[in-house]
Amino acid sequence: MKNLASYVFGEWVEGKGGPATRGNPTTEEPLAQASTEGVDMKKALDFARDVGGPALRAMSFRERGGLLRKLSRTIYTARDELMTLGVQNAGNTRSDAKFDVDGASATLAAYADIAENELGDAKFLVDADPINIGRSSKLTGQHLFLPLEGVAVHINAFNFPAWGLAEKAAVALLAGMPVISKPATSTALMAFRLMQLIVEQEILPKGALSFLAGSTGDLLSHLRGQDVLAFTGSSDTAAQLRALPNVVRDSVRVNVEADSLNAAILGPDASSGETYDLFVKDVVRDITQKAGQKCTAIRRVFVPKDRVGDLRDLLVERLRATKIGDPSREEVNMGPVATKKQRDDALTGIDRLVRTGAKAVTGGKAPAQTIGVEAGKGFFVDATLLEVESPDAVADVHAIEVFGPCTTLVPYDSSAALVRAVRRGDGGLVASLYSDDKSFTREVVLGIASSHGRLVLGSEKAAASAVPPGTVLPSLVHGGPGRAGGGEELGGTRGMRLYLQRTAIQGYGPVVAALVAEGKKV
Amino acid sequence: MKNLASYVFGEWVEGKGGPATRGNPTTEEPLAQASTEGVDMKKALDFARDVGGPALRAMSFRERGGLLRKLSRTIYTARDELMTLGVQNAGNTRSDAKFDVDGASATLAAYADIAENELGDAKFLVDADPINIGRSSKLTGQHLFLPLEGVAVHINAFNFPAWGLAEKAAVALLAGMPVISKPATSTALMAFRLMQLIVEQEILPKGALSFLAGSTGDLLSHLRGQDVLAFTGSSDTAAQLRALPNVVRDSVRVNVEADSLNAAILGPDASSGETYDLFVKDVVRDITQKAGQKCTAIRRVFVPKDRVGDLRDLLVERLRATKIGDPSREEVNMGPVATKKQRDDALTGIDRLVRTGAKAVTGGKAPAQTIGVEAGKGFFVDATLLEVESPDAVADVHAIEVFGPCTTLVPYDSSAALVRAVRRGDGGLVASLYSDDKSFTREVVLGIASSHGRLVLGSEKAAASAVPPGTVLPSLVHGGPGRAGGGEELGGTRGMRLYLQRTAIQGYGPVVAALVAEGKKV
Repeated sequence: MKNLASYVFGEWVEGKGGPATRGNPTTEEPLAQASTEGVDMKKALDFARDVGGPALRAMSFRERGGLLRKLSRTIYTARDELMTLGVQNAGNTRSDAKFDVDGASATLAAYADIAENELGDAKFLVDADPINIGRSSKLTGQHLFLPLEGVAVHINAFNFPAWGLAEKAAVALLAGMPVISKPATSTALMAFRLMQLIVEQEILPKGALSFLAGSTGDLLSHLRGQDVLAFTGSSDTAAQLRALPNVVRDSVRVNVEADSLNAAILGPDASSGETYDLFVKDVVRDITQKAGQKCTAIRRVFVPKDRVGDLRDLLVERLRATKIGDPSREEVNMGPVATKKQRDDALTGIDRLVRTGAKAVTGGKAPAQTIGVEAGKGFFVDATLLEVESPDAVADVHAIEVFGPCTTLVPYDSSAALVRAVRRGDGGLVASLYSDDKSFTREVVLGIASSHGRLVLGSEKAAASAVPPGTVLPSLVHGGPGRAGGGEELGGTRGMRLYLQRTAIQGYGPVVAALVAEGKKV
Repeated sequence: MKNLASYVFGEWVEGKGGPATRGNPTTEEPLAQASTEGVDMKKALDFARDVGGPALRAMSFRERGGLLRKLSRTIYTARDELMTLGVQNAGNTRSDAKFDVDGASATLAAYADIAENELGDAKFLVDADPINIGRSSKLTGQHLFLPLEGVAVHINAFNFPAWGLAEKAAVALLAGMPVISKPATSTALMAFRLMQLIVEQEILPKGALSFLAGSTGDLLSHLRGQDVLAFTGSSDTAAQLRALPNVVRDSVRVNVEADSLNAAILGPDASSGETYDLFVKDVVRDITQKAGQKCTAIRRVFVPKDRVGDLRDLLVERLRATKIGDPSREEVNMGPVATKKQRDDALTGIDRLVRTGAKAVTGGKAPAQTIGVEAGKGFFVDATLLEVESPDAVADVHAIEVFGPCTTLVPYDSSAALVRAVRRGDGGLVASLYSDDKSFTREVVLGIASSHGRLVLGSEKAAASAVPPGTVLPSLVHGGPGRAGGGEELGGTRGMRLYLQRTAIQGYGPVVAALVAEGKKV
């Protein structure tokens, strides 16, 4: 069995002691093992801070962008190999794995483009124009953004091992901060292979990117005020990280992407036609793609009361046609969820919703048949549609995120009630709205925007070229308030601010101007 | 004795039970008492959320700015009365109190100007230009900023009862969020009177501004994901607030301004002349103004090794000339600190620094004489200058903030050593640099910026019109990383982001454009 090592202080280091095993969720066969026990985490941080940080800060944005371009190409060149690891280790279909791997290279390339086209030869950013201060015209103030002189620690989720590593690293490295990246234990094979390629090809300066295959050990207890912690995963883990004594005491910046009951809303006007078809396509995709394991997947489907019947029938038909089984087979369009625990959690969540009043329209348990899989093996959950009678019928529909192939139909009878119901999710990553009615769209957007990080408007004129809500774009922010973690990633240069300190500089105009002239205004 | 009530759910409410007493720190006489015991905090929050929030969100920026203009005028009109309360209750000289009270009206006026001149009739903000997304030119994305639909809870420090309330409220109200403001218990008289005037004059819509005279009780346990908590005070209290279970779980936004070992740096070139004089004036002011109780006050004075002797003599001369005593007397230029606890903490901090190796050059205990004060009465601390041999001689000089009339001379011998030493403060609100050497200025600014929220450059050409580092300007951000709390206030529209959710909107270009057209681009 393969041993996954960690790459820290410029070396590959294998941990001691009882290693965690990563398996194939389709066959339940073990694939690899790894441990970080005994790895000197303090030394790993110091090396990143003292060697990686200065190297990155000495580079211009263009130069840092050049590194991202190389990383992007490395991933693109190895995409077949990486996708295969996703199929084996994460239960991905080839198309699921492509979404992850190509998303990784595309995001790196997008940030390489930003470096080249927008930021150029500067080493830091400037925030807007000079401001006159005081009573004299001699004094001005202006704001700079300089990289923090610590380490960006990235803790990624199991569902996007390639994209998770790449999107966080792209932003931090471009900002000028060294990264220590930790993939989720269960699906680490792809991220490990990616890191091997990066190290072999000597793409990055020493200390710029480190990698932990396994637990973070005591790493997080060594974080200080110039470090950053970015986490994607469950609210429970996020809460633990946020309350770490040193994180609280030293105001360590923590960015969280967590749970989200993403809504898809069908407008009252869209009962057929392209807008309706787009809506159905997006809902079905989000149930089945990656077996529903996307933080952006639609969990609540809001439908005008009188449209529920037709839609239910259509969704049942589509979901029952899903071919579930061994994701390495071409005819299969949904694999297992990533681990036994994920399967158990998803089924428990579905049970909970059903026990509190939701109706299981289709699915709700392990599938009756799986293609090409030994009977009883694999962590499969059937494509599941639940339904509730009204937005207020089952409170948990707005609170429990079933992280698997499951969504819930929620009828609504007025736009005001709809806005209230969507907001009951208490903060989400994304909501999508399918309507060609401008007044309805306006009311809903202004009503729900402040509880979301992103809203996707599906309409007839753009249906053919629509980008689904589950696709996170590097140019738009990703994150949401409240339950979704309160974080913000990506969004072009916006995401870089997590790694930059904004500093007001005030003084004699020409002196401030001379300093600011070295930076790039954004 | 006066009873201070709380203003919640549109009513003045007096608490039950053992009230805390506010006194005069010069005479130690009690002035007033207050308690929030029995006040229904949940009801206070709900009223602000359900009544104040919708009222503010229905107004344009211009209309909200109109409210701020009225608040500013109310304070300005009552400034004499408010200043007298500062003298009585906070130990302020009239000049100290003026700094607080006029700072309050000026900050409100500055935000009223922003509303009128920059934001106008819109109700929300738009972040930058549309972005093309996807492969078709039909799709665009753009970011909006909408007010969170919760309550902004403001917990202010004892040292700026008027400015603290006003600067936080100005930004939140303009953003469109209702406020519950809690002044520090010890110096609440001025804030209470201010609130009385605001209520009497019926300036604000119901629920827009509430006021707690006393403890927050269980208020903070009711905060949810759309609420905001902004705190100014000690790191210890900040750490408790940040780790509150509901704050952590619901990703409640917390903004903190906490401890800061602000540095003033004399450049090697500035051994005399206007730049040098400005430096000396700023250092002396920050020791004596408000008896050193400014979060922005200079705590560490970095001086080229060979300049320490002359500077020490000059500072000793100035500090010994300080007239300490009853701040209501015109000849007195430094009053007591605000409370017995503050006096004890300041003296304990000085002792600690002296015990670990700092030398008390002058002061260091209660003053030998106080003008117009009964012997043994009043919470006085002498104007104190400490000195260490080198930046590394006494670690606590970079860690212990003596919140009183005290600063420490720290010699340095190279700009690289200087940058390292300044950064040992682990994150500060402001640092000031006095030099006319461009290359030195550049090196130090780029070296220390990422550990500061603001840098003030003092130089010959702007010396006559200089704004001291201790003055927080509404147009520049106030806050700092690490020890300083990691927060950001003010800075024009920048500070409003704490109260706004950034949401990406993506869809068919003209649909997105129509929505965005209602907002004001910043």
